[in-house]
Amino acid sequence: MIVRSLQEARKTDRRVVSEGWESTRLLLKNDNMGFSFHITTIYEGAELHLHYQNHLESVYCVSGEGEVENLDDGVVYPIRPGTIYILDKNDKHILRAKTEMEMACVFNPPLHGKEVHNADGAYELDGEEVSDK
Amino acid sequence: MIVRSLQEARKTDRRVVSEGWESTRLLLKNDNMGFSFHITTIYEGAELHLHYQNHLESVYCVSGEGEVENLDDGVVYPIRPGTIYILDKNDKHILRAKTEMEMACVFNPPLHGKEVHNADGAYELDGEEVSDK
Repeated sequence: MIVRSLQEARKTDRRVVSEGWESTRLLLKNDNMGFSFHITTIYEGAELHLHYQNHLESVYCVSGEGEVENLDDGVVYPIRPGTIYILDKNDKHILRAKTEMEMACVFNPPLHGKEVHNADGAYELDGEEVSDK
Repeated sequence: MIVRSLQEARKTDRRVVSEGWESTRLLLKNDNMGFSFHITTIYEGAELHLHYQNHLESVYCVSGEGEVENLDDGVVYPIRPGTIYILDKNDKHILRAKTEMEMACVFNPPLHGKEVHNADGAYELDGEEVSDK
Protein backbone atom coordinates (compact mmCIF):
# COMPACT_ATOMS: atom_id res chain seq x y z
CA MET A 1 0.00 0.00 0.00
CA ILE A 2 1.22 3.45 -0.90
CA VAL A 3 -0.25 6.52 0.86
CA ARG A 4 0.36 10.09 -0.26
CA SER A 5 -1.25 13.45 0.28
CA LEU A 6 -1.94 16.28 -2.11
CA GLN A 7 -0.61 18.77 0.42
CA GLU A 8 2.77 17.00 0.70
CA ALA A 9 3.02 16.15 -2.99
CA ARG A 10 2.57 19.82 -3.87
CA LYS A 11 5.91 20.53 -2.19
CA THR A 12 7.72 18.12 -4.52
CA ASP A 13 8.37 17.79 -8.23
CA ARG A 14 5.07 15.95 -8.51
CA ARG A 15 3.61 19.45 -8.91
CA VAL A 16 3.91 20.80 -12.43
CA VAL A 17 2.92 24.39 -13.15
CA SER A 18 2.15 25.57 -16.66
CA GLU A 19 0.23 28.35 -18.37
CA GLY A 20 -3.35 28.42 -17.13
CA TRP A 21 -3.08 25.24 -15.11
CA GLU A 22 -1.10 23.23 -12.62
CA SER A 23 -1.20 19.54 -11.83
CA THR A 24 -0.01 17.37 -8.97
CA ARG A 25 0.62 13.80 -10.04
CA LEU A 26 -0.29 11.61 -7.08
CA LEU A 27 0.14 8.29 -8.86
CA LEU A 28 2.47 7.70 -11.79
CA LYS A 29 3.73 5.02 -14.16
CA ASN A 30 6.36 3.83 -11.71
CA ASP A 31 3.63 2.86 -9.24
CA ASN A 32 2.73 0.09 -11.69
CA MET A 33 -1.04 0.52 -11.46
CA GLY A 34 -1.60 0.74 -15.21
CA PHE A 35 -2.96 4.29 -14.96
CA SER A 36 -1.90 7.61 -13.46
CA PHE A 37 -3.96 9.91 -11.23
CA HIS A 38 -3.56 13.67 -10.95
CA ILE A 39 -5.26 16.55 -9.21
CA THR A 40 -5.25 19.38 -11.71
CA THR A 41 -6.21 22.99 -11.12
CA ILE A 42 -7.38 25.04 -14.08
CA TYR A 43 -7.00 28.72 -13.30
CA GLU A 44 -9.96 31.07 -13.61
CA GLY A 45 -10.38 32.33 -17.15
CA ALA A 46 -8.00 29.80 -18.71
CA GLU A 47 -8.72 28.40 -22.15
CA LEU A 48 -6.71 25.29 -22.96
CA HIS A 49 -6.47 23.70 -26.40
CA LEU A 50 -5.76 20.03 -25.84
CA HIS A 51 -5.35 16.92 -27.90
CA TYR A 52 -4.03 13.86 -26.13
CA GLN A 53 -3.18 11.79 -29.16
CA ASN A 54 -1.23 9.23 -27.13
CA HIS A 55 -3.38 8.89 -24.03
CA LEU A 56 -6.95 8.15 -22.99
CA GLU A 57 -8.07 10.47 -20.20
CA SER A 58 -11.04 10.93 -17.90
CA VAL A 59 -11.55 14.21 -16.04
CA TYR A 60 -13.87 14.52 -13.03
CA CYS A 61 -14.77 17.98 -11.69
CA VAL A 62 -14.35 18.20 -7.91
CA SER A 63 -15.03 21.94 -7.71
CA GLY A 64 -15.46 24.99 -9.91
CA GLU A 65 -17.28 25.67 -13.17
CA GLY A 66 -16.40 25.78 -16.82
CA GLU A 67 -17.01 23.99 -20.10
CA VAL A 68 -15.43 21.58 -22.52
CA GLU A 69 -15.85 21.86 -26.28
CA ASN A 70 -15.46 18.79 -28.44
CA LEU A 71 -13.74 20.04 -31.59
CA ASP A 72 -14.78 16.95 -33.53
CA ASP A 73 -18.46 17.93 -33.48
CA GLY A 74 -18.53 21.42 -31.93
CA VAL A 75 -20.66 20.36 -28.97
CA VAL A 76 -20.02 22.34 -25.77
CA TYR A 77 -20.70 20.64 -22.43
CA PRO A 78 -20.97 22.59 -19.16
CA ILE A 79 -18.69 21.44 -16.34
CA ARG A 80 -19.82 21.61 -12.72
CA PRO A 81 -18.88 19.64 -9.61
CA GLY A 82 -19.85 16.03 -10.38
CA THR A 83 -19.29 16.28 -14.16
CA ILE A 84 -16.96 13.75 -15.78
CA TYR A 85 -15.76 13.99 -19.35
CA ILE A 86 -14.14 10.99 -20.94
CA LEU A 87 -11.80 11.35 -23.90
CA ASP A 88 -12.34 7.87 -25.29
CA LYS A 89 -11.45 8.84 -28.85
CA ASN A 90 -8.37 10.99 -28.17
CA ASP A 91 -10.79 13.84 -28.76
CA LYS A 92 -9.38 17.24 -29.67
CA HIS A 93 -11.01 19.69 -27.27
CA ILE A 94 -10.96 23.10 -25.62
CA LEU A 95 -11.28 23.37 -21.85
CA ARG A 96 -12.49 26.69 -20.44
CA ALA A 97 -12.55 27.60 -16.75
CA LYS A 98 -15.22 30.10 -15.76
CA THR A 99 -13.96 29.86 -12.19
CA GLU A 100 -10.92 28.00 -10.86
CA MET A 101 -11.63 24.30 -11.31
CA GLU A 102 -10.17 21.34 -9.44
CA MET A 103 -10.20 18.18 -11.52
CA ALA A 104 -9.34 14.55 -10.77
CA CYS A 105 -7.69 13.18 -13.91
CA VAL A 106 -6.87 9.60 -14.87
CA PHE A 107 -4.55 8.77 -17.77
CA ASN A 108 -4.03 5.50 -19.61
CA PRO A 109 -1.26 4.79 -20.36
CA PRO A 110 0.03 6.36 -17.15
CA LEU A 111 2.18 9.47 -17.30
CA HIS A 112 5.81 9.31 -16.21
CA GLY A 113 5.34 12.70 -14.58
CA LYS A 114 7.65 14.94 -16.58
CA GLU A 115 5.53 15.39 -19.67
CA VAL A 116 4.62 18.87 -20.82
CA HIS A 117 2.14 19.69 -23.57
CA ASN A 118 3.71 19.81 -27.00
CA ALA A 119 2.63 22.20 -29.76
CA ASP A 120 -0.41 20.00 -30.49
CA GLY A 121 -1.61 20.09 -26.87
CA ALA A 122 -0.56 16.46 -26.47
CA TYR A 123 1.79 14.64 -24.15
CA GLU A 124 4.59 12.66 -25.71
CA LEU A 125 4.86 9.04 -24.61
CA ASP A 126 8.45 9.35 -23.46
CA GLY A 127 9.49 11.25 -20.36
CA GLU A 128 11.61 11.01 -17.28
CA GLU A 129 10.31 9.27 -14.22
CA VAL A 130 9.55 11.13 -11.01
CA SER A 131 10.88 9.76 -7.76
CA ASP A 132 8.72 9.63 -4.66
CA LYS A 133 10.38 12.69 -3.11
CA MET B 1 -16.14 12.17 -25.92
CA ILE B 2 -18.52 10.93 -23.25
CA VAL B 3 -19.92 13.34 -20.66
CA ARG B 4 -21.84 12.24 -17.56
CA SER B 5 -22.77 13.76 -14.24
CA LEU B 6 -22.77 12.27 -10.77
CA GLN B 7 -26.20 13.78 -10.12
CA GLU B 8 -27.76 12.08 -13.16
CA ALA B 9 -25.87 8.83 -12.75
CA ARG B 10 -27.16 8.50 -9.19
CA LYS B 11 -30.68 8.14 -10.60
CA THR B 12 -29.65 5.07 -12.63
CA ASP B 13 -28.32 1.59 -11.95
CA ARG B 14 -24.83 3.08 -11.95
CA ARG B 15 -25.54 3.72 -8.25
CA VAL B 16 -24.94 0.69 -6.07
CA VAL B 17 -25.89 0.80 -2.38
CA SER B 18 -24.44 -1.63 0.12
CA GLU B 19 -23.85 -1.88 3.85
CA GLY B 20 -21.87 1.13 5.05
CA TRP B 21 -21.22 2.52 1.58
CA GLU B 22 -22.61 3.40 -1.79
CA SER B 23 -20.86 3.93 -5.09
CA THR B 24 -21.78 5.55 -8.39
CA ARG B 25 -19.80 4.14 -11.29
CA LEU B 26 -19.24 6.99 -13.71
CA LEU B 27 -16.95 5.11 -16.08
CA LEU B 28 -17.02 1.36 -16.59
CA LYS B 29 -15.42 -1.45 -18.57
CA ASN B 30 -17.70 -0.91 -21.55
CA ASP B 31 -16.30 2.60 -21.99
CA ASN B 32 -13.05 0.92 -23.10
CA MET B 33 -10.71 3.19 -21.17
CA GLY B 34 -8.78 0.37 -19.46
CA PHE B 35 -9.89 1.52 -15.99
CA SER B 36 -13.12 2.36 -14.20
CA PHE B 37 -13.87 5.47 -12.14
CA HIS B 38 -16.35 5.65 -9.28
CA ILE B 39 -17.46 8.19 -6.72
CA THR B 40 -17.94 6.23 -3.51
CA THR B 41 -19.50 7.45 -0.28
CA ILE B 42 -18.48 5.72 2.95
CA TYR B 43 -21.10 6.36 5.58
CA GLU B 44 -20.13 7.84 8.94
CA GLY B 45 -19.00 5.17 11.38
CA ALA B 46 -18.64 2.44 8.75
CA GLU B 47 -15.83 -0.12 9.07
CA LEU B 48 -15.23 -2.05 5.86
CA HIS B 49 -13.02 -5.13 5.59
CA LEU B 50 -11.76 -5.24 2.04
CA HIS B 51 -9.45 -7.34 -0.05
CA TYR B 52 -9.49 -6.75 -3.79
CA GLN B 53 -7.65 -9.84 -4.89
CA ASN B 54 -8.52 -9.36 -8.54
CA HIS B 55 -8.14 -5.60 -8.94
CA LEU B 56 -5.65 -2.81 -8.36
CA GLU B 57 -7.34 0.25 -6.87
CA SER B 58 -6.47 3.83 -5.96
CA VAL B 59 -8.72 5.82 -3.62
CA TYR B 60 -8.55 9.63 -3.37
CA CYS B 61 -10.38 11.40 -0.55
CA VAL B 62 -12.44 14.35 -1.80
CA SER B 63 -14.09 15.07 1.55
CA GLY B 64 -14.48 13.61 5.03
CA GLU B 65 -12.14 11.95 7.49
CA GLY B 66 -11.25 8.42 8.43
CA GLU B 67 -8.41 5.92 8.30
CA VAL B 68 -7.16 2.92 6.41
CA GLU B 69 -5.38 0.03 8.09
CA ASN B 70 -3.04 -2.15 6.07
CA LEU B 71 -3.57 -5.65 7.44
CA ASP B 72 -0.28 -6.87 5.96
CA ASP B 73 1.79 -4.76 8.38
CA GLY B 74 -0.76 -3.25 10.79
CA VAL B 75 0.06 0.33 9.83
CA VAL B 76 -2.87 2.77 10.14
CA TYR B 77 -2.93 5.83 7.88
CA PRO B 78 -5.22 8.81 8.53
CA ILE B 79 -7.44 9.85 5.64
CA ARG B 80 -8.31 13.50 5.04
CA PRO B 81 -9.24 15.50 1.94
CA GLY B 82 -6.25 15.18 -0.39
CA THR B 83 -5.14 11.74 0.85
CA ILE B 84 -4.71 8.98 -1.73
CA TYR B 85 -4.13 5.35 -0.86
CA ILE B 86 -2.97 2.99 -3.54
CA LEU B 87 -3.55 -0.74 -3.26
CA ASP B 88 -0.64 -1.80 -5.45
CA LYS B 89 -0.26 -5.19 -3.83
CA ASN B 90 -3.93 -6.23 -3.62
CA ASP B 91 -3.51 -5.24 0.03
CA LYS B 92 -5.97 -6.60 2.55
CA HIS B 93 -7.22 -3.58 4.50
CA ILE B 94 -9.82 -2.05 6.77
CA LEU B 95 -11.39 1.28 5.87
CA ARG B 96 -12.96 3.29 8.69
CA ALA B 97 -15.03 6.45 8.24
CA LYS B 98 -14.92 8.87 11.16
CA THR B 99 -17.23 11.14 9.19
CA GLU B 100 -18.96 10.49 5.90
CA MET B 101 -16.24 10.32 3.24
CA GLU B 102 -16.48 10.94 -0.49
CA MET B 103 -13.82 9.05 -2.42
CA ALA B 104 -12.78 9.03 -6.09
CA CYS B 105 -11.83 5.43 -6.88
CA VAL B 106 -10.04 4.00 -9.91
CA PHE B 107 -9.97 0.26 -10.64
CA ASN B 108 -7.75 -1.71 -12.98
CA PRO B 109 -9.01 -3.92 -14.53
CA PRO B 110 -12.20 -1.86 -14.84
CA LEU B 111 -15.37 -3.00 -13.12
CA HIS B 112 -18.35 -4.10 -15.21
CA GLY B 113 -20.58 -2.30 -12.72
CA LYS B 114 -22.59 -5.11 -11.20
CA GLU B 115 -19.98 -6.53 -8.86
CA VAL B 116 -20.72 -6.81 -5.16
CA HIS B 117 -18.20 -7.69 -2.47
CA ASN B 118 -17.89 -11.41 -1.89
CA ALA B 119 -17.22 -12.99 1.52
CA ASP B 120 -13.54 -12.05 1.25
CA GLY B 121 -14.30 -8.37 0.61
CA ALA B 122 -13.23 -8.81 -3.01
CA TYR B 123 -14.93 -8.25 -6.35
CA GLU B 124 -15.18 -11.18 -8.70
CA LEU B 125 -13.88 -10.56 -12.20
CA ASP B 126 -17.14 -11.52 -13.90
CA GLY B 127 -20.28 -9.38 -13.78
CA GLU B 128 -22.98 -7.97 -15.96
CA GLU B 129 -22.44 -4.79 -17.87
CA VAL B 130 -24.30 -1.61 -17.09
CA SER B 131 -25.94 0.22 -19.96
CA ASP B 132 -25.74 3.96 -20.33
CA LYS B 133 -29.55 4.24 -19.76
